[in-house]
Amino acid sequence: MDFRSDNTCPPAPEVLARLQNSLAVGESAYAEDEISAATKARLSRIFEREVDYFPVFTGTAANALAIAQLSGSFGEVVCSESSHIFADECGAVEFHSQARLRPISGNMGKLVPESLPPLTDSGDVHRGRPTVLSLSQSTETGLAYRPEEIVSLTQKARAAGVRVHMDGTRFANALAFTGATPAELSWQAGVDVLCLGATKGGAIGAEAVIFFSPEDAKEFRRMMKRSGHLGARMWFLSAQISAWLEDDFWLRSARHGNMMAALLDRLLRAKGIQPLYPVEANMIFVEMSAGQSVRLSEMGFLHYLAVQPDGRIAVRVVTSQATLETEVEALADAIGRCLATSAGRLA
Amino acid sequence: MDFRSDNTCPPAPEVLARLQNSLAVGESAYAEDEISAATKARLSRIFEREVDYFPVFTGTAANALAIAQLSGSFGEVVCSESSHIFADECGAVEFHSQARLRPISGNMGKLVPESLPPLTDSGDVHRGRPTVLSLSQSTETGLAYRPEEIVSLTQKARAAGVRVHMDGTRFANALAFTGATPAELSWQAGVDVLCLGATKGGAIGAEAVIFFSPEDAKEFRRMMKRSGHLGARMWFLSAQISAWLEDDFWLRSARHGNMMAALLDRLLRAKGIQPLYPVEANMIFVEMSAGQSVRLSEMGFLHYLAVQPDGRIAVRVVTSQATLETEVEALADAIGRCLATSAGRLA
Amino acid sequence: MDFRSDNTCPPAPEVLARLQNSLAVGESAYAEDEISAATKARLSRIFEREVDYFPVFTGTAANALAIAQLSGSFGEVVCSESSHIFADECGAVEFHSQARLRPISGNMGKLVPESLPPLTDSGDVHRGRPTVLSLSQSTETGLAYRPEEIVSLTQKARAAGVRVHMDGTRFANALAFTGATPAELSWQAGVDVLCLGATKGGAIGAEAVIFFSPEDAKEFRRMMKRSGHLGARMWFLSAQISAWLEDDFWLRSARHGNMMAALLDRLLRAKGIQPLYPVEANMIFVEMSAGQSVRLSEMGFLHYLAVQPDGRIAVRVVTSQATLETEVEALADAIGRCLATSAGRLA
Amino acid sequence: MDFRSDNTCPPAPEVLARLQNSLAVGESAYAEDEISAATKARLSRIFEREVDYFPVFTGTAANALAIAQLSGSFGEVVCSESSHIFADECGAVEFHSQARLRPISGNMGKLVPESLPPLTDSGDVHRGRPTVLSLSQSTETGLAYRPEEIVSLTQKARAAGVRVHMDGTRFANALAFTGATPAELSWQAGVDVLCLGATKGGAIGAEAVIFFSPEDAKEFRRMMKRSGHLGARMWFLSAQISAWLEDDFWLRSARHGNMMAALLDRLLRAKGIQPLYPVEANMIFVEMSAGQSVRLSEMGFLHYLAVQPDGRIAVRVVTSQATLETEVEALADAIGRCLATSAGRLA
Repeated sequence: MDFRSDNTCPPAPEVLARLQNSLAVGESAYAEDEISAATKARLSRIFEREVDYFPVFTGTAANALAIAQLSGSFGEVVCSESSHIFADECGAVEFHSQARLRPISGNMGKLVPESLPPLTDSGDVHRGRPTVLSLSQSTETGLAYRPEEIVSLTQKARAAGVRVHMDGTRFANALAFTGATPAELSWQAGVDVLCLGATKGGAIGAEAVIFFSPEDAKEFRRMMKRSGHLGARMWFLSAQISAWLEDDFWLRSARHGNMMAALLDRLLRAKGIQPLYPVEANMIFVEMSAGQSVRLSEMGFLHYLAVQPDGRIAVRVVTSQATLETEVEALADAIGRCLATSAGRLA
Repeated sequence: MDFRSDNTCPPAPEVLARLQNSLAVGESAYAEDEISAATKARLSRIFEREVDYFPVFTGTAANALAIAQLSGSFGEVVCSESSHIFADECGAVEFHSQARLRPISGNMGKLVPESLPPLTDSGDVHRGRPTVLSLSQSTETGLAYRPEEIVSLTQKARAAGVRVHMDGTRFANALAFTGATPAELSWQAGVDVLCLGATKGGAIGAEAVIFFSPEDAKEFRRMMKRSGHLGARMWFLSAQISAWLEDDFWLRSARHGNMMAALLDRLLRAKGIQPLYPVEANMIFVEMSAGQSVRLSEMGFLHYLAVQPDGRIAVRVVTSQATLETEVEALADAIGRCLATSAGRLA
Repeated sequence: MDFRSDNTCPPAPEVLARLQNSLAVGESAYAEDEISAATKARLSRIFEREVDYFPVFTGTAANALAIAQLSGSFGEVVCSESSHIFADECGAVEFHSQARLRPISGNMGKLVPESLPPLTDSGDVHRGRPTVLSLSQSTETGLAYRPEEIVSLTQKARAAGVRVHMDGTRFANALAFTGATPAELSWQAGVDVLCLGATKGGAIGAEAVIFFSPEDAKEFRRMMKRSGHLGARMWFLSAQISAWLEDDFWLRSARHGNMMAALLDRLLRAKGIQPLYPVEANMIFVEMSAGQSVRLSEMGFLHYLAVQPDGRIAVRVVTSQATLETEVEALADAIGRCLATSAGRLA
Repeated sequence: MDFRSDNTCPPAPEVLARLQNSLAVGESAYAEDEISAATKARLSRIFEREVDYFPVFTGTAANALAIAQLSGSFGEVVCSESSHIFADECGAVEFHSQARLRPISGNMGKLVPESLPPLTDSGDVHRGRPTVLSLSQSTETGLAYRPEEIVSLTQKARAAGVRVHMDGTRFANALAFTGATPAELSWQAGVDVLCLGATKGGAIGAEAVIFFSPEDAKEFRRMMKRSGHLGARMWFLSAQISAWLEDDFWLRSARHGNMMAALLDRLLRAKGIQPLYPVEANMIFVEMSAGQSVRLSEMGFLHYLAVQPDGRIAVRVVTSQATLETEVEALADAIGRCLATSAGRLA
């Protein structure tokens, strides 16, 4: 059973089924096709505002290009130290934007207004100028920002002329958890660009970069082209995104993932095991030694082991649209048994 | 009828049919999956040599990353002025590699040994140092390099320590035209890295970057990651490439495209119309005024009009695995009628 | 005798003498010193307009940073194929700005309105968007733009939203030749940023980047810092620039260099030798075989031999503030004797 | 009295006097001159080994280019969080090398073997690969590494194939403090490239990039050119470096600076004031409130106030070759008086 990530499961059959129609017809290349136009219109309806929209194949590309667009060739991007752009993208933002990341620690991977550095330009030429504030929704620790939490952060950014990027690789999980509308969790809360991930929610591989002010996106297609992210059959990415959004599948998919995580949380707590962070979206961290983690893998439960920002070592398990209740029960049971052993820490 | 490019037709049903199996199972992310491993093994058999292989979503990414890997952060890339990397990729090679392109004119878009600049380092610090020779196979003018032609170019490169990249977005069409083996048209002729395009031959969107010396590729996955080209479900790209290669579909698909172009060539010549370049692969250029081109579009035949390197204005029509004989006949007829009119050149 | 360039002679004693005073006192670092402030004020008086000013150590840095500032991280820089930024800076503009150069051929190294490509954005994502027009004043072929010639070029640029950069490494020579005022040859003619070179006119090594609209320069000091061009004792560069400008030394120095070139022109023509281009600033090109050029060097006259854009091979000789009349006479005599020999062309 | 830095005092008269000779003769441009060749020979003697040498105008350029050369276009640079490259260069290393910095905290700004992260390639594509270890000698906290301390760090680096850069902006101060030879503190201890700063020791503005393995430097002049750091009269930088090295002036200058700092240390301790770090080179940090710092400035003692890595606020005072004993006594007295006041912390 695979709990490594919500991208190691197969794509959702519901999404695949809806893709069939698009595959039989020719379309203009380079995202100038009708499927992309329809996807843009659909997103505008969902977000209750005219948006600009671009499909890309990977979340890393979505984040790096969106931030490069907002930052210009110069700047400092304020983000959490546990954010994907800082911890897991091998310098992609820096590569695409020439900006520098400024990681903020603490608060279990969530930014809070008090943790932000001064955002106004210090004028000190030895240092950079903050240009972008980047939020992960939900966070890499499995937490969801409430609308008012986002507002409290973006107000400080906007007052200083700093733009706001949201890494929404698991935005749907945050919607499902908070019950807020897509608009409330994004532009109404001060977000300028949202990278909405469909891959982890059931698409094969497709992410939507959504600009809430179309003038922000004016060089974006050229930036995509120049970096090799504007392919011929972009309509296939749009088709996936549309299929994933259709009939609220994206929300149902996210709700299921969250529900499986919540179930795991309950089962673990029933065994006296406390996850490291509150379980809000679709992932759970459990403190565990390296030896216990190896044991858990040997029992057939794939997962990642990682050092947490606070130094604790924990396994991360992620649930998805494809996770079954019986799998979660088996996992809870296995974790319980692993933690009961005294397996020592491996090197 | 759409003759704009071999990427505006729908993907080949043969490829789509073979994809179904892969879609139902989970796989490791980031190209560490079994489908990618099997595709690498298949390519090694086809190219009669152990290769290193990486799937990417766009041809631009394939070219830019492959050249960046060979060039290092510094250098000059010698290519034809009609090459895609110089004329159609918005600076992607420069962006990824920090190298500079040095376009060579003449010879209908084909490089010949006499057209190459000195490739050895002049030592002049005001100029760059040639690091990569890039060949397009087949060329953007529809010509195919024979093995001995490639050898005559790569010998000069290798003597100067310059590495050789082949943009093989239509490599299969060159195979079909020359009758040479994949090995004869690539590493046996001195090519270091081949970007083998499956997109235009029937896949949805997938290109294979093939290094013939695995040590050349040592940072490649990180370069993919840093530039946002290493996605979660890379196996879906590998699955497309494998499906396209299976049962020689790639060669049959290319042969069909070439045959349709050859048919068009014959039909036009029968009407006294001489295409601009010898028709070897799957595209034909016909000199035409802007007005006549508009007329051709209005008659329902989509195509591109472009200024040729020598200044002549011509329409380009591209055939593909999806082109029907009746479509070609209709197109030949329409071109004949357009050219018979005296429609003037538009601004 | 050294005619290789106007930067191989020693700095002008007049400049060195005026530097002594500044060397004995401490100053704030990073161009926040009083000498730099005074130089800025002096330049504002000379150019009859409040300017923003930054000293740098090399002409390549001046050009690359100024263009990077105007272009942003994306764009196409239109320039002559004989411009220093295209032919002699090893990709510096591309490195600093990520823009791409678009070289224009013809007109003996001078741009004319008819030679400009369309400057408005084509919208074609495969190509770049022109962002900067770059003029060399005087040109690398020794010609000077008249004010109305500059206006005819900048009007097209401004109409398309394209900014104008002037590489003024020999701006003073153009002033001396045209008799125009500094303002007439720069902002009044539509120039946005001027890189005014003092090095070739008598300073040790100092160039002034002059923005005519201070808001254009807002990230410039940080760009200098990030690229390593903001040193501690920037006041020493400003001191050189001020010393060079004082008492119109810069104009007298340029007039002398031009006069020496004009003298050489007359002496050569008297011998029936026609220089390749009209002699306006301080350099002369004479067609010559490689063998004759070697002979000229052996006779003690250092110079460069270069292939001209039109394919002819010519020696370039440059005069400067340090050139003596007797040296010019000796050179004219030597050229005459070299050309009289039938020394064959070397490889 | 100016204690802000050792670059705000005037250049040393001893250096200026020795410069005069070089200023009267012409020289080849672009660092191919005889003065640079002689400086290289002199450095080879001083370092007891054939070295490759390049002069640059700023310390930021020296560091960024040297690291870019060693790192290639990809990598992670391990350094102290208080290093100049991380804290004070506005992203210059990242700009020139596309590498990412990995700052290490603790140990009062000094790296120790136990503080180093794993240097061998983890193979994890989401993270970078360490390519360069950067040491500041002396550190930005005023400490000097002993030869054996350097060895203990570089051994770990070399074992992992990681190259070693030394920011030697105050290398001479470390020589003076440790009594070691230049060779012992550099290549004999495992350093691959040393950026030897002359600016802060008495030159106007000149830094020597010294490669101990000449093959490491093979693209360096082109990297200098491309980034605008290869100017015409590079010989003027070499002349400064040679003048500074002559007759051991560089060591005498550093010894004087260190001695002035040691005197200040003694005088402060006599007043019961403990500097934050051991005083080894030429700077001292004293904990002080913002209000007290303002007071100190008002009393005529220029200095910088900075938050230390551990969060304490302190004034930094730097002594130099130009500092007088009476100035130090006056400063000690003034600091004593400021600390005696209860001036509150300013915002």
